[in-house]
Amino acid sequence: MGQSFGKNLKVTIFGSSHQEYIGVVIDNVKPGFEIDMVKLDDFMQRRAPGKSRFTTKRKESDKAIFISGLRENKIISKTITALIKNNNFKSKDYNNLNDIPRPSHADYTSFIKYGKDMDMNGGGPFSGRLTAPFCLAGGIAKQILEEKNIKIASRIKNIGGIYDKSLDLANPPMDELEKISQKEIPVLDEKKEEEIRKLLEDVRSEGDSIGGICQVFGENIPQGLGDPLFDSFEAKISYLSFGIPALRAISFGEGLNSINMRGSAHNDQFELENGKVKTRTNNAGGIVGGITNGMPVVFDLIFKPTPSISLKQKSFSIREKKEKDLLIKGRHDPCLALRTPPIGEAILALTVLDYLYE
Amino acid sequence: MGQSFGKNLKVTIFGSSHQEYIGVVIDNVKPGFEIDMVKLDDFMQRRAPGKSRFTTKRKESDKAIFISGLRENKIISKTITALIKNNNFKSKDYNNLNDIPRPSHADYTSFIKYGKDMDMNGGGPFSGRLTAPFCLAGGIAKQILEEKNIKIASRIKNIGGIYDKSLDLANPPMDELEKISQKEIPVLDEKKEEEIRKLLEDVRSEGDSIGGICQVFGENIPQGLGDPLFDSFEAKISYLSFGIPALRAISFGEGLNSINMRGSAHNDQFELENGKVKTRTNNAGGIVGGITNGMPVVFDLIFKPTPSISLKQKSFSIREKKEKDLLIKGRHDPCLALRTPPIGEAILALTVLDYLYE
Amino acid sequence: MGQSFGKNLKVTIFGSSHQEYIGVVIDNVKPGFEIDMVKLDDFMQRRAPGKSRFTTKRKESDKAIFISGLRENKIISKTITALIKNNNFKSKDYNNLNDIPRPSHADYTSFIKYGKDMDMNGGGPFSGRLTAPFCLAGGIAKQILEEKNIKIASRIKNIGGIYDKSLDLANPPMDELEKISQKEIPVLDEKKEEEIRKLLEDVRSEGDSIGGICQVFGENIPQGLGDPLFDSFEAKISYLSFGIPALRAISFGEGLNSINMRGSAHNDQFELENGKVKTRTNNAGGIVGGITNGMPVVFDLIFKPTPSISLKQKSFSIREKKEKDLLIKGRHDPCLALRTPPIGEAILALTVLDYLYE
Amino acid sequence: MGQSFGKNLKVTIFGSSHQEYIGVVIDNVKPGFEIDMVKLDDFMQRRAPGKSRFTTKRKESDKAIFISGLRENKIISKTITALIKNNNFKSKDYNNLNDIPRPSHADYTSFIKYGKDMDMNGGGPFSGRLTAPFCLAGGIAKQILEEKNIKIASRIKNIGGIYDKSLDLANPPMDELEKISQKEIPVLDEKKEEEIRKLLEDVRSEGDSIGGICQVFGENIPQGLGDPLFDSFEAKISYLSFGIPALRAISFGEGLNSINMRGSAHNDQFELENGKVKTRTNNAGGIVGGITNGMPVVFDLIFKPTPSISLKQKSFSIREKKEKDLLIKGRHDPCLALRTPPIGEAILALTVLDYLYE
Repeated sequence: MGQSFGKNLKVTIFGSSHQEYIGVVIDNVKPGFEIDMVKLDDFMQRRAPGKSRFTTKRKESDKAIFISGLRENKIISKTITALIKNNNFKSKDYNNLNDIPRPSHADYTSFIKYGKDMDMNGGGPFSGRLTAPFCLAGGIAKQILEEKNIKIASRIKNIGGIYDKSLDLANPPMDELEKISQKEIPVLDEKKEEEIRKLLEDVRSEGDSIGGICQVFGENIPQGLGDPLFDSFEAKISYLSFGIPALRAISFGEGLNSINMRGSAHNDQFELENGKVKTRTNNAGGIVGGITNGMPVVFDLIFKPTPSISLKQKSFSIREKKEKDLLIKGRHDPCLALRTPPIGEAILALTVLDYLYE
Repeated sequence: MGQSFGKNLKVTIFGSSHQEYIGVVIDNVKPGFEIDMVKLDDFMQRRAPGKSRFTTKRKESDKAIFISGLRENKIISKTITALIKNNNFKSKDYNNLNDIPRPSHADYTSFIKYGKDMDMNGGGPFSGRLTAPFCLAGGIAKQILEEKNIKIASRIKNIGGIYDKSLDLANPPMDELEKISQKEIPVLDEKKEEEIRKLLEDVRSEGDSIGGICQVFGENIPQGLGDPLFDSFEAKISYLSFGIPALRAISFGEGLNSINMRGSAHNDQFELENGKVKTRTNNAGGIVGGITNGMPVVFDLIFKPTPSISLKQKSFSIREKKEKDLLIKGRHDPCLALRTPPIGEAILALTVLDYLYE
Repeated sequence: MGQSFGKNLKVTIFGSSHQEYIGVVIDNVKPGFEIDMVKLDDFMQRRAPGKSRFTTKRKESDKAIFISGLRENKIISKTITALIKNNNFKSKDYNNLNDIPRPSHADYTSFIKYGKDMDMNGGGPFSGRLTAPFCLAGGIAKQILEEKNIKIASRIKNIGGIYDKSLDLANPPMDELEKISQKEIPVLDEKKEEEIRKLLEDVRSEGDSIGGICQVFGENIPQGLGDPLFDSFEAKISYLSFGIPALRAISFGEGLNSINMRGSAHNDQFELENGKVKTRTNNAGGIVGGITNGMPVVFDLIFKPTPSISLKQKSFSIREKKEKDLLIKGRHDPCLALRTPPIGEAILALTVLDYLYE
Repeated sequence: MGQSFGKNLKVTIFGSSHQEYIGVVIDNVKPGFEIDMVKLDDFMQRRAPGKSRFTTKRKESDKAIFISGLRENKIISKTITALIKNNNFKSKDYNNLNDIPRPSHADYTSFIKYGKDMDMNGGGPFSGRLTAPFCLAGGIAKQILEEKNIKIASRIKNIGGIYDKSLDLANPPMDELEKISQKEIPVLDEKKEEEIRKLLEDVRSEGDSIGGICQVFGENIPQGLGDPLFDSFEAKISYLSFGIPALRAISFGEGLNSINMRGSAHNDQFELENGKVKTRTNNAGGIVGGITNGMPVVFDLIFKPTPSISLKQKSFSIREKKEKDLLIKGRHDPCLALRTPPIGEAILALTVLDYLYE
C-alpha cells in the first residue's frame, strides 16, 4: 500500500508536484489492448487544473508519456509505466510552508511523521496533483471496461449545500451523465448549475472555499464482486477513496439518507423482468452483503472545502514555537470537489478491473 | 483479508451463527498482558442480543472460551484463540431462506457467489453474529490501549433522524460517554433518549425498522499514525468498518456537515497551549493528510434500517424463477444501530493497536 | 502472514503444543465439496508422532474436530475451522527451557523477540506440532485437487547422506510413490531403506540425530500458474516451506545438481507428443520463468538434524548470564525429516489450490 | 507483489529490456539520507554487463536517472523514482523468439500465460535486465544500512562444481570479501580463481554455459528480525530471491551440508564472550526459528547454467505446431552466476531495511 494499491491489477503512483515528473506503474494488465489516446487525454483533462474559472490557475498539460509497456498505443507487456511532466515546478509560491503549517493541510502531520527534511513544496507526497497519474491509470481501466460493456459515469451532486436533481438509483441516466462530463460544473439541472455558479463566484470573491459531493455510477458491473466480512466491495472502494486528498466521507446508495427511512422503504424488493432478477429500488447502490448484485453501483464522495484560502488564519512557527498569523498567497481552487468526478470514476474503474483480473 | 484483517496485529474471525462455535484468532499480541475478564465480558455484553427491548430476543451468553494463548488470564504466546458457543443453533426459524431471498439481505448475492450449497441459516458468513468475536478481539485491544492511557468511547448520535446533542469534537466528554455506555439507548441528552425510545416503540409495533448513526471517539491517540495516499488512517478505519453488516456510510470529523461549511469555518486553526500544538476546532476528526494529528479521533458510522422486518415484501423463488411474497417470521431488532457502539470502539481499538505494533 | 498464508485460499494456524488445542481456519473454500474423512485421517497419520520407532514417542491422536463449515463432511460455508486436541499437554519434560536455551532451537531467539512471558513449553509458537493443522488443511486441499485429476506425492530422497534411487523427473512414478507413502521410511529402493534404517538405529543409540531430504512431486499441475519476477511459483512454494521448522534449504527440479551441469545438459529441450508440448528432461522441475509449464512439479526440502539430542551441550543461563552445560531429557526424533513428506505434499497442494481459486 | 515487494519499504520494478527505460520506485524511505552516487554507481557496475570477458557483450551504461525524491543526492520525500536507459533497445538479435521458444527460457510459459501479444524481445518482463533497477534499490538500502554499521558482502562460492575455499560462517572475512568484490571472478582463493577461469574459457569456446553459487553475508544484522511460522526471515529472503531469473535453489548457513552432519555437529552451541551471547559455530547462518540471532547471516543462491547457448537445440514452432531445431545467435554470458553477487547483496539489504522500517 502507501503509493500502491490493488490485489491483481497493481497500481503504483510516484513523484511529487514540485519535482520533475509524477507518474504511475500499472502492473498485471493484459497484453493486446489498444489505448484510445484521445479519449484518455479527454478523461485526464476533466481533472486537470486551469480549465475553469473555479479551479486553480496553475496550468499543467498533463500529457501521459509512456516509457514502457506500449508500442503504438497497444499494450505489449504486463506492466505499463507512464510519466507526467510537472511544469513550473520550481515555483516558490509556497515558501514559508515548512515552518508555518497551513491549517487543515498535511504540513503539520507531515512534519510529525517525516521531520524537516520532507519537501512539502506543493504538498509533497500529499499533493492533489498525484490524482493526475491516478486518473491516467483509471482512464485506461475505464476503456478496458467499456470494451466489456461496463459503463462508468459521475456528476457533481452537491456544492455548498445546493443539490443537483435527485435520481432513480435503479436507472441512472448514463448517457446524460456522459454528456455533462466535460462541463465546468457537471450537474444535470441547469437551474442548480446557475445557483452553484453564483455561490462559487461569491466564495471566490470572499477568498474562501466550499465543499461538495461527487456521485459515481457504474452500469453493468458484474454480479458477485466482493466478499462477506473484511473484503467487501464497499471496503475496497472506500479504501481507495480515502487515498484521495480532502475526502471526508463516503456513502453507498442512499446511505446518508437511510437513517431517515424505515426498513420497509429502504429494503430493495425483488422483481423479475423477463426472467432477470432486479430490485425495484436501488437504495443499496448495487452492493448487498459486500457483494455486487447486478444493479447499478452508486456511491457518493464527500469532499471538504479546499483548505487553501486567502483569508488570514491562525497558525504557529514550528521553529520558534510561537503562534503566528498565516496568509496563503496565490490563487486557489475555491472548490476542489469540482475536479473530482474523473477521480471518482477512476476509483470505480480500477476497483472493478482489479476484481475482473481475479 | 476476507475473514482476516490487520497488518501487524492480525485478527481472523471464523464460524457461522448456526453452527457450533464462532471464534477469533488474534495474532502478534505481546506476551505478558493480563486480560481483565470482567471488563471484557461487560464490553461484549454491550453488543450481545437479548439485553434490551429493542434488540432481537435471541439470547446468546457470548462468553469467551480461550483455547490457546492464555494462562490464568495472562497472555503467554503470540497468538490467542477464543471460541464463543452458539446456543439454539439448530433453530429452524429461517427455513425458506435458501429459496426465497430476503430483500436487502445477502441471501441473493450469496447465492450468486457461492451457489446453493452455502448454508445461509442465520445469515451464514454474512451474519451480524460474527461481530461477537470481533468485539472480543476489540475488547482486548481496548484494554491494552487503556494501559497506555489511550481512551476509546462511543455513543448513538442519531436514530431515525433524531440527533443526540452536538458535541465539541475538540473536547469530547469521554467520562460521560463511558457512563452512558451500558444504557439501552446510549445517548447523552435524556430528552432525545425519550424521543428515540418512542420512535423505536412505534417502529417495532409497526413491524418495521429504522437506521441510525454510531459515533466513535478516541482520546490520546498517538500522533503520526497513517500514511499519505493509499494507506491513510481513514482508509484503514473505513476498510474495517465496511466489514460490519449494514454499514452504508462513514464520515470523519464533521465530514457530512463539511459541504455546508466554508473553508474558513471548516479549517482547524492552530493554537499553542502550554507549548503543545492543538487546533481550536476539530472538524478534521483528528486526521489530516491521512495521519493522526494528536487531536481526538472522531468518526461516524451510518447504519441502514434492519433489513429483517415483519411486513410483507416482494421477492422471488430462485428454484421456480417466479415472483413471490415473503413474510419473515420471528422477532427482529427494530434498530441494529443500537448494538453497534462497542463494534465502533472495536474498529478504532484494533486499528490503533495494529499501528502501535508497527 | 505470521500464522496465516495464501492469497485466495487463506489458511490460519493457531495454538501451541502445550495448550489445550491447536487448530486451523481455512477461508475461501467452495461450498459443496465432501471431505473423505478416512483419507484425511490417513494423510494426517503420516505426519503424526508415535507411529514409528524413529519418531518421538509422544502419542497424539491428531483427530480433526470440525467446529464450523461442515455438515456431514460436506463443506457448507466459505470458512472451515477445525481443532486438534493436545494430549498430555501438562507434561513438564521441558522444565528448564525458559532459562537455559537449547542450541539450534528457537528458545533464545524467542527470548530476544518476545521476552520472558512467552511460554516456550513444547516449542511454543515455533513447535513442529503446528504442522499437524497445516497437514489438516493440506490434506483437504489435496483431496480437492484429486477431484480435478491433480496428483501430489512425495518420498524421502536422502537421510544422512544416503540417497534413494534417482528418478526421471519428467516421469515420476506417482503410483509407486503413493504405495510407499505409509512406510516407516518412505523410499523406493529397499536396499537403501535398509541402510537408512541401520543409520537411524546407530544415530538413535548414540543419542544423536540426522538430517534428510524430502522430495515432492505434482502431476497434472495446470500450466500458467505463477508470475514473472516477485510472485513466481517457486517464491510461493519457498515462502510457505520456510514456515516449516528445521527447513534449511529448498531446491527446484535438479537445482542442487545444476552447478555440475553444462547448459546444454540442463536445458529442457522441447518435443511434441501427439501435438502436446513436452520437454524431454525436466531439470526445471516444471517451473520456468516462475510459471508452471505443465511438466511435473518437483522440489526438494532439505531438513537439518533434529536439534533435540541426548548428548551434553554447551549453553548458558539467561538469568545468571553464565555458561552452563545442558542435558535435554526425554526421547527425541532422531530424524524429523522422516515425518515431513505429508508436510511437503501439503505445501504443494495448498499453493496450487490457492492459484486455482484465483 | 508481481513487480513489487516489501512490507514497509516497498519497491516496484518496471520496464522491459527492449523498451526505452527500466526503473524503480522505492517507497517509504526516510527523508534526509544523502546517497553516495559514486558508491551506488560502483555497486551497480558489479552487475552491469560488458565488464568482463565472461559476461554478455551487450554494453549498458546503467546510470541511475532520478526523477523524483532527491535533491542534490539527498532524499527529500518518502518515495524515490529512478530510471535507467536501455541502449540499443531496438536490437533485432532475438527475432524468431516469439514463434520458436528457447529451451529453459520463459518464452513458452510467457506464451501460455500472456498469449502472442506479449513482447518477449530481450526476455520481456522475465529479463535479467530488471535486476539492474533491483540493484539500484539494493545499493541505496546497503548504504543506509552501512550508516548503522550493518555490513553486507558476497562472493562466488562455486562455479561449475569448483568451490572457493570454505569459511568459518561465525567469522566471515568481511573486509576481504569487500576487497574481491570488483574482481571478474570474485573468489578468495586465487588458485581456484584460475581453475574457474579456465573452466569458463572452455565452456565459452564450446558455446555452452555453466551454473554457480553466490554466497551472501551480513554482519551486525540486528537480532530479532523475523517471525515464527509463515513470516520467517528465511521466507522473506527466499521469496525475494526466487524473483531473480535462473535461481534454482537457496540454502541458509550450512543448509546443504546439514544432511551429512549429525545433530551434535550441526547444533550451534552457545558461549558467552564478554557477556555477549554467541554461538561457537554458525551452521544456522544467523537464523533460528525464523528469527535472526545476532550471528552473521549467511545464505547461498544456486543458479542454473545460462539457458542461452550457441549449440543447436530442439524446440518447436508455436504457429506450425511442428518440432524445429533452434540456433540462438549472438554472444551470451557463459555463466550468469558471475553477475549475481551484487544481486544477492541487494536481496539481503532490502530485506533487512524492510524489517528496520517496521
